[in-house]
Amino acid sequence: MSSTDSRRSIATVCLSGTLEDKLTAAARAGFDGVEIFENDLVASPWSAKEVGEHCAELGLSIDLYQPFRDFEAVSPPVLARNLRRAELKFDVMEQLGTATMLVCSTVSPDAVDDDDLAAEQLHLLAEHAAARGLRIAYEALAWGRFVNTYEHSWRIVRRAAHPALGLCLDSFHILSRGSDPAAISTIPGEKLFFLQLADAPRLQMDVLQWSRHHRLFPGQGSFDLTAFTGHVLAAGYRGPLSLEVFNDVFRQADPAPAAVDAMRSLLALQENLGVADLPPAPALAGHTFVELAVDDVSAPRVADALRGLGFAETGRHRSKPVRLWQQGDARILLNTDGSGPTGSASVGAVAVESADPVASARRAQRLRAPILPRDHRADEADLSAIAAPDGTSVFFCRTGAETGDSWLGDFTLSDAPGPGAGVTGIGYLGLTQPFDHFDEATLFYRAVLGLEPEPVTEFAAPFGLVRSRTVTDPSGRVRIALESALLRRGEWAPSVREPQRIALTSDDALASARRMRELGAPLLEIPGNYYDDLDARLAPDPELLTALRRQSVLYDRDEHGELLHFFTLVLGGRVFFEVVQRIGGYAGDGAANSPIRMAAHRGQRAAREGEASTED
Amino acid sequence: MSSTDSRRSIATVCLSGTLEDKLTAAARAGFDGVEIFENDLVASPWSAKEVGEHCAELGLSIDLYQPFRDFEAVSPPVLARNLRRAELKFDVMEQLGTATMLVCSTVSPDAVDDDDLAAEQLHLLAEHAAARGLRIAYEALAWGRFVNTYEHSWRIVRRAAHPALGLCLDSFHILSRGSDPAAISTIPGEKLFFLQLADAPRLQMDVLQWSRHHRLFPGQGSFDLTAFTGHVLAAGYRGPLSLEVFNDVFRQADPAPAAVDAMRSLLALQENLGVADLPPAPALAGHTFVELAVDDVSAPRVADALRGLGFAETGRHRSKPVRLWQQGDARILLNTDGSGPTGSASVGAVAVESADPVASARRAQRLRAPILPRDHRADEADLSAIAAPDGTSVFFCRTGAETGDSWLGDFTLSDAPGPGAGVTGIGYLGLTQPFDHFDEATLFYRAVLGLEPEPVTEFAAPFGLVRSRTVTDPSGRVRIALESALLRRGEWAPSVREPQRIALTSDDALASARRMRELGAPLLEIPGNYYDDLDARLAPDPELLTALRRQSVLYDRDEHGELLHFFTLVLGGRVFFEVVQRIGGYAGDGAANSPIRMAAHRGQRAAREGEASTED
Repeated sequence: MSSTDSRRSIATVCLSGTLEDKLTAAARAGFDGVEIFENDLVASPWSAKEVGEHCAELGLSIDLYQPFRDFEAVSPPVLARNLRRAELKFDVMEQLGTATMLVCSTVSPDAVDDDDLAAEQLHLLAEHAAARGLRIAYEALAWGRFVNTYEHSWRIVRRAAHPALGLCLDSFHILSRGSDPAAISTIPGEKLFFLQLADAPRLQMDVLQWSRHHRLFPGQGSFDLTAFTGHVLAAGYRGPLSLEVFNDVFRQADPAPAAVDAMRSLLALQENLGVADLPPAPALAGHTFVELAVDDVSAPRVADALRGLGFAETGRHRSKPVRLWQQGDARILLNTDGSGPTGSASVGAVAVESADPVASARRAQRLRAPILPRDHRADEADLSAIAAPDGTSVFFCRTGAETGDSWLGDFTLSDAPGPGAGVTGIGYLGLTQPFDHFDEATLFYRAVLGLEPEPVTEFAAPFGLVRSRTVTDPSGRVRIALESALLRRGEWAPSVREPQRIALTSDDALASARRMRELGAPLLEIPGNYYDDLDARLAPDPELLTALRRQSVLYDRDEHGELLHFFTLVLGGRVFFEVVQRIGGYAGDGAANSPIRMAAHRGQRAAREGEASTED
Repeated sequence: MSSTDSRRSIATVCLSGTLEDKLTAAARAGFDGVEIFENDLVASPWSAKEVGEHCAELGLSIDLYQPFRDFEAVSPPVLARNLRRAELKFDVMEQLGTATMLVCSTVSPDAVDDDDLAAEQLHLLAEHAAARGLRIAYEALAWGRFVNTYEHSWRIVRRAAHPALGLCLDSFHILSRGSDPAAISTIPGEKLFFLQLADAPRLQMDVLQWSRHHRLFPGQGSFDLTAFTGHVLAAGYRGPLSLEVFNDVFRQADPAPAAVDAMRSLLALQENLGVADLPPAPALAGHTFVELAVDDVSAPRVADALRGLGFAETGRHRSKPVRLWQQGDARILLNTDGSGPTGSASVGAVAVESADPVASARRAQRLRAPILPRDHRADEADLSAIAAPDGTSVFFCRTGAETGDSWLGDFTLSDAPGPGAGVTGIGYLGLTQPFDHFDEATLFYRAVLGLEPEPVTEFAAPFGLVRSRTVTDPSGRVRIALESALLRRGEWAPSVREPQRIALTSDDALASARRMRELGAPLLEIPGNYYDDLDARLAPDPELLTALRRQSVLYDRDEHGELLHFFTLVLGGRVFFEVVQRIGGYAGDGAANSPIRMAAHRGQRAAREGEASTED
């Protein structure tokens, strides 16, 4: 395979806005070319010629004009009309300066089930195209009336036997039907005119609706696009890797980050194919720290809460208004340098232990992650930091490295022993994503950090459905639960900015809860109904149930083990802590308890509002 | 049938928020009772006893505790566990003060396919329930592992033969599978313990996902709930009509209007069943007028536009700052009495010709539509007005009535002849609905005004998918296209408040367009690409094509006839006019051209922004 240099393209239908918006976004994200989706051109005030010129200025080739529908296997008068229609579109293609037209297998009631006739008429179309230096890429739609598999479209193209007629392969149409793509590698590469790539979640629904609403960029869904594309490249395909993704969310999202997300999906796919020159993702070994952006009002409140949780302030940054709080291996930085609403707190940065922070950052940069400029003095560590899709900074650290490299060297450390409450480290983070960025975030953490996504789950929260997808490293030491509302929330929902959760680990959650209560931690009370229901559902040992109820500790069990966990109130309007104890091989994060926690947090807010308090 | 007095209930799962929010909303909307959805209770800080007391204070009975799952057809040890679980839930029911528990047919891997065993164990459960004065309503889930039809659940209940065991019928589970509900009427009424009602759109997808995300209130979807409920009442069912609707949008929407929407759905269903005492909807005979809320800045601009469209100012309200503009039968009122952002314009009211305005208003009031108080002098017409879900006022008028009754009597009329541009009347309105209110609006216009909804259509607009559903009277003279974004728009989409369209009719759209251009109307320019594509798609006569292109008139054709239509720019940030000419029996509203119009309007805004103009 010598496709290291495959060009990368994107169909304009993948992105939101006018054609002008889309082309700008594609060019800025570094795409080599575009497919022009007819509807985008038709609605544009630019003529086809102007669009062609504009693309040239942006450095974008126009690799495909699409789609042309319902051409083949029709009666002579319909054929005459269809040829006229084709010639008029060839005019447009000449103006655009593009050579290949996508023709979809017919869904027309005018067509008949006759492969010979289809081949003959496609041959004729190719003849017309060739006369103008153009060519036809024939694609089997998954819902094509007669032709709906790539094997069938290939039989027709082979029978038509015209050099200007070849195949367009679309991963969605092929994989959604469960076709085996292996035979693609037996098709002569020169007959593969175009390759459209789309991923998708596995859904049990009408395939046309699935295709039009739920496609995703490669790496965001459930299709094995690496194997699929491997077969296409093995066949000798030398055209661009081009994305064609119809997705309800992307259709209405800012096209600039969406185009970057799209480009990242192709870079990661090329890496999986072994044809990308990316530094491999260095191994990660846990959460180094979480930095909270606080202000003078919220900082003492959060510090009180940390003290209540058994943390101690153990360091002060040498040059910045940053304090280090620690307990076990859990480290929280409080940074008062930022700006936000008065009294607010939020996760400003997450740091992970990397075997090679510089390589981590280099990889991130290659995958189009924004590199964050860092002010640091000459004697301070140059922390490599990038921005995640939700704006959170991600730092790559080696805490154990020689002093000069370690971020800890920037702190004046004290050995002040904290009160201690059994916290051993940071177990995972729960980061609610802005609505438009859920799938983008999955791919970001997967591609850039090398984390693996678990399946998407969904649960009913008091103010609407929530979906959740956890990304984790193979050892489970870096673990981030990405959450998002299933629908963008309106005015009714509590106006809390996306909540953020820091889950601390304990070997004895009940003991930790008792100790934290003694220390005055602001723990969340769980209603008695929960424990009545828990008794009915899982029947924990009565003594355990009593202890759980007394300490407002929640419980879950699966076939591998048990989970005990509890929560603090929401601090600074957005952040809360969780303490988790896993017993045995319990696999989840207690998502079944999330609605209980959310309702209790809502009660906390309602109570505060009732008090007309100015607190968070 | 003597069920005029059927009680009306709602499952708490239909509404958004905490249990406290839901109960308040249900009570305020006038429901008699609720089904308590277990998850809502479990997350509540109120004990079951407190919930029961609270419901009593609100005048709500608790008609059902639900759901209890995976009970029957299991091995002895599992049965023992399940009985313990049931007894604990019976405790909760006693505290709540509710007598009936919903038991869903099992989906458990522990269960076996043995109707005798299922019947025997349900008998045992009923025995336990009866000992505490409770009863069991057994329901066949559409995705039940062994029992998934009402016929099957009835066989088991009959075999179990326990007076405390009966059926729960759920319209979704029955109609989604295409079961014939007619045989329900042969089941003894006393064995029908509960009736859950839900409508839904016809979707080709996994039935569980369909059920959990897409249920609707009766009258909003495609199910024939009148026939279904008729069979249940014919069987002698005397329990409440209760709604159980799982819907992604309702789950996150303000529960107060959602509960009113729900109540309206039951009232309309009861009317269809012939068991409601509602005044029938008087016949409607067209759009009387549209009133635009303008201010001193926007009023002269809109007046200029109206003059450009061929309208003349023909009347001044005797006591209010309202001017009447007219052309043919199209009447537009400009009302400068309101408040809005400076320079804005929006549809404040729509008026329809009613055969009996007082009866129309009385019906609306009975269907929980807010009646708008109207200031009017003793000698002025008392216009009956209600508020639609989007806040627009709806007036019921009889323009031809004796002077005292006619709204026109409130105006000093002049016979000033307008320039005229061939407008004959108001053909229809296009009202974009706030995201949460699309289905509610359909039901509102259907139930309150007696309009019939056409199927939902969907199209891809530049900034996201849009769904549209037109409601119309049988004669087609009152016609309102309700539109909404498929996903609530975020920051990327143009920040225009829901656009509103007033479609004027003409017998010669091209002549009207020419005349309006002469008069200086602010018409929307359509890009040339549209006409190139139109030529390729529909090949209109070349002379017609040239004329359409010259006048920026759009075109569509179906098997019945043709449509010519064109648009103004957006006025006051929200309102635009359309002029439509239907030839032959063309059935639609040219929705295929909507994306073209939207992109052109977007171009208009972009151009204005580019000019840094302060105009709209």
